[in-house]
Amino acid sequence: MKQVAPWFSAVSLSLMMFSLPAQAAAEEKTDAELITRLREEALQHSQVQDHFSVLTDEIGARLTGSPGLKRAADWAQTRLRSWGLEKVHTESFAPFGVSWEFEHARVRLLSPFAQDIVAIPKAWTPGTNGPVQAKVVVAKLSSEEDLSKWQGKLAGMVVMVDEPLAMKPHLSADARRLENRDLEELTKVDPDALPRRDLAAALKQFLFQKKLVAFLNNEKVLATLHVSRGDDGTIFVQGGGSYKKGEAQPPTALVLSSESYNRIYRLAAKKQAVEITLDVKVRSGEESPDYAVNVLADIPGSDKKDEIVMLGAHLDSWHGATGATDNAAGVAVMMEAVRLLREAGFKPRRTIRLALWGGEEQGLLGSRAWVQQWVAARPESSDASQKDLPSYLRSGSAGPLQLKSLHGKISAYFNLDNGGGRIRGIYAENNVAVKPVFESWLAPFADLGANTVTLRRTGSTDHVSFDAVGVPGFQFIQDPLDYMSRTHHSNMDVYDKVPKADMVQASLVVASFIAHAANRSDLLPRKPMPKEKKENKENNTETSAASARP
Amino acid sequence: MKQVAPWFSAVSLSLMMFSLPAQAAAEEKTDAELITRLREEALQHSQVQDHFSVLTDEIGARLTGSPGLKRAADWAQTRLRSWGLEKVHTESFAPFGVSWEFEHARVRLLSPFAQDIVAIPKAWTPGTNGPVQAKVVVAKLSSEEDLSKWQGKLAGMVVMVDEPLAMKPHLSADARRLENRDLEELTKVDPDALPRRDLAAALKQFLFQKKLVAFLNNEKVLATLHVSRGDDGTIFVQGGGSYKKGEAQPPTALVLSSESYNRIYRLAAKKQAVEITLDVKVRSGEESPDYAVNVLADIPGSDKKDEIVMLGAHLDSWHGATGATDNAAGVAVMMEAVRLLREAGFKPRRTIRLALWGGEEQGLLGSRAWVQQWVAARPESSDASQKDLPSYLRSGSAGPLQLKSLHGKISAYFNLDNGGGRIRGIYAENNVAVKPVFESWLAPFADLGANTVTLRRTGSTDHVSFDAVGVPGFQFIQDPLDYMSRTHHSNMDVYDKVPKADMVQASLVVASFIAHAANRSDLLPRKPMPKEKKENKENNTETSAASARP
Repeated sequence: MKQVAPWFSAVSLSLMMFSLPAQAAAEEKTDAELITRLREEALQHSQVQDHFSVLTDEIGARLTGSPGLKRAADWAQTRLRSWGLEKVHTESFAPFGVSWEFEHARVRLLSPFAQDIVAIPKAWTPGTNGPVQAKVVVAKLSSEEDLSKWQGKLAGMVVMVDEPLAMKPHLSADARRLENRDLEELTKVDPDALPRRDLAAALKQFLFQKKLVAFLNNEKVLATLHVSRGDDGTIFVQGGGSYKKGEAQPPTALVLSSESYNRIYRLAAKKQAVEITLDVKVRSGEESPDYAVNVLADIPGSDKKDEIVMLGAHLDSWHGATGATDNAAGVAVMMEAVRLLREAGFKPRRTIRLALWGGEEQGLLGSRAWVQQWVAARPESSDASQKDLPSYLRSGSAGPLQLKSLHGKISAYFNLDNGGGRIRGIYAENNVAVKPVFESWLAPFADLGANTVTLRRTGSTDHVSFDAVGVPGFQFIQDPLDYMSRTHHSNMDVYDKVPKADMVQASLVVASFIAHAANRSDLLPRKPMPKEKKENKENNTETSAASARP
Repeated sequence: MKQVAPWFSAVSLSLMMFSLPAQAAAEEKTDAELITRLREEALQHSQVQDHFSVLTDEIGARLTGSPGLKRAADWAQTRLRSWGLEKVHTESFAPFGVSWEFEHARVRLLSPFAQDIVAIPKAWTPGTNGPVQAKVVVAKLSSEEDLSKWQGKLAGMVVMVDEPLAMKPHLSADARRLENRDLEELTKVDPDALPRRDLAAALKQFLFQKKLVAFLNNEKVLATLHVSRGDDGTIFVQGGGSYKKGEAQPPTALVLSSESYNRIYRLAAKKQAVEITLDVKVRSGEESPDYAVNVLADIPGSDKKDEIVMLGAHLDSWHGATGATDNAAGVAVMMEAVRLLREAGFKPRRTIRLALWGGEEQGLLGSRAWVQQWVAARPESSDASQKDLPSYLRSGSAGPLQLKSLHGKISAYFNLDNGGGRIRGIYAENNVAVKPVFESWLAPFADLGANTVTLRRTGSTDHVSFDAVGVPGFQFIQDPLDYMSRTHHSNMDVYDKVPKADMVQASLVVASFIAHAANRSDLLPRKPMPKEKKENKENNTETSAASARP
């Protein structure tokens, strides 16, 4: 936007800003009759909460590499077939790694008085093989110096490795919906705020963690205790051990709520003899190709059926709860969107392909594998030192991008993975040409709160796998609700955290987007192909980096 | 306030309202030199968090009638003696009832997949005598018709008796501090809002609960499951069984978080076979007079030593956590207040008496018993039908109030029991003459946020025991923080929920109030003696009514 002339009053400026999205929506035609049918079906006869209920209440946690993911994939295929979708199948991205499921963690503080403590193991860390009793000790283990200091002193002990978490009263709301001013803010791109990843620091941390695991095992540490972020008893927990077959595992690693952790820490810091019993059971077993899958399903197109419009969400979850906002909600919404299109009798010109990904939480593994197979791939480095690193730490590739059969055929991939909140707009990922298209498509949903297109990029989920190889990949803007403060990767990621109305709205907006992309005369405009460069994965590393911490 | 003349501008009105409390403070002299010493000690050298830490982290839950209360009383006496307080002793209000402590509750949902569920038993309900497996069924049991309907159908089952709890995103803050407008509002008394208790309805409910207990036992119901209010995994839990020796107990009664309860309810409502295992262990045993005590301690007075200024808080708690905001914080603050007075070298004219009450949660039992013994008593009804009722349901007394030795000697009793928030003022309990006195006493603490005197009455805690017999009893206004939304009688009532600064401020304000009351020329002004009436306990029944529900 050019500088505003001085005679341009503050009032008219603010009015203009408020109505910008609607004004810009002009060129792209939308199908009012279809949208009416979709609205009718979505708002009157939604089944989204039933998909959501089965996924959360009945199937439960869906950790990649575990039977839970297979149960979910089996169920999703059955349901998608029942709606008449075609080519409903799974594609495995195995080998992934060992199967791991959380059975129970019973932690009992024995002194100063006996009390059960709620705790959840980090994924892929081992159980205790029955109840064991041990002394609790506070020992910071964050540097090589720390390791030297504690050498020979921790055998058979339960070690509290984190500082206690400082807490404050919740004087602002845990959950929020985006206000107009938040949406306005979201449309601004600050070049200074572009994400940069310190690969060297991440590599250093990765290598220290390897040393730490060896230290904990050599010292025969019984278990480590970790403090959860957040409070009110909520436990945020991801991975801790390695899911790769044959790799060294740390001892049992348990995450406690900040309140529980802080209390035990205070007792131990007072030099009180703190004893606990641990009985942690996990079901760890052989890998199966069926535990590391993506689910694919098509609504076949007509005159342009070789071209594809994709939508998706990830089916896998962490293990602390039932993966409701991350990402049963996204899966339920995307499934419901295709059901709405079927139910509304929509006849697509292009093929519509739904993808429910596995392995998202471990670094977009499912979508990357699929993209690599069908869309575009970079040859793997033959450098042995690179092969030992997780993908997010590898610097550069062994050659330029090799395009596959679908690269020129996929109009766009639309993703939903920012919790259970309704859709407020979409990230256009710096694709200026697509912005007015999306503004037109959003216009019929302004009454439902979806009206913002930002040129910002957003990361950390499966649309990045497409964007990274030059295929348009988009993620919707959602009301955050209490996703970051409460449910994201926590034991509170459960059914009741997602308002039905939000999923209903989202499924409607997505269905309309997909329909308009499917029947548009052209494929959606693309950005230039990504440059070949040494460091090429800076936008999707948040999740994978987090999951690799012990 | 009279109606404001029209020329009185909105701006000056709001300014006047803002400064009202300070302006009214005029008559009563305060001792600036003493206050400076108290401030110095409180703000620079507070020990309040240490008292609080021992009570919560080390002593833990302090259910009336249990060893936990004795541990707390023992510790408090030792600490008070170490500060040179005199006549440090306990007074028992036994017989109270059976001893009960929560040992563990292990609930495991077996289908559709195995998962541990956090649950806490209602106090005084029995354990399961080891692990038992049972079917879960939804059965509303709220009326005689409900009981007839389910007769013969619930043997050996776990019964979900509550409706699921509807949940919404937390779009407003869980915790809050009082704004000036809230304090202004608090100073207004709405005669329509005076609390009235429907004794007939409460009696009907009490009698139905007796029938329900008999039904559950006759039907051999294994256990009942109850939904907690609130969300985010927090469990609010009080009493369920009867603590009276020989009274019939319901089966095991477990409270689940709303998220857990709702999920199991949804599964059961889908007619899925829901099986769980329960292993609930409680330590229930003989009563001891040492488990039902008040702790008393004096700083002796000088020229007016026969007159007494009292301060107190209740030492007992519920069992779901460590009773931090209810009411370890109040105890720590009141103990610290007397420590501050000792440390500041304050020489009281009147005797200062600290009281740490037991039995508050069961109906102000400790403070009532003490008041009855030393201050004033109403003869007990000899009507047998009245004797079987809990005190809050008895209609009228067998005769007029009989005054005891201390009735004319206690200037006032000051209580703190509204969570861990700082003091913002005080409820003057409709005592108009005391209002300007309190305003003067608060004036030196306006910079610390304490500036409001309201004529409102407030109930539900131990000052009522004094007010009910015509002795001035007061409760301070506190910032609510997340007391009602999160910690009050919940498993989140823990150390980290109370900011140290709030307890420091409160102990300072209380110490100064007590000092000024102790050295004032006269006793504090009193209200007229309470009228003798049929129904005489309408202000303090909230807690006791709640605790009597199975």
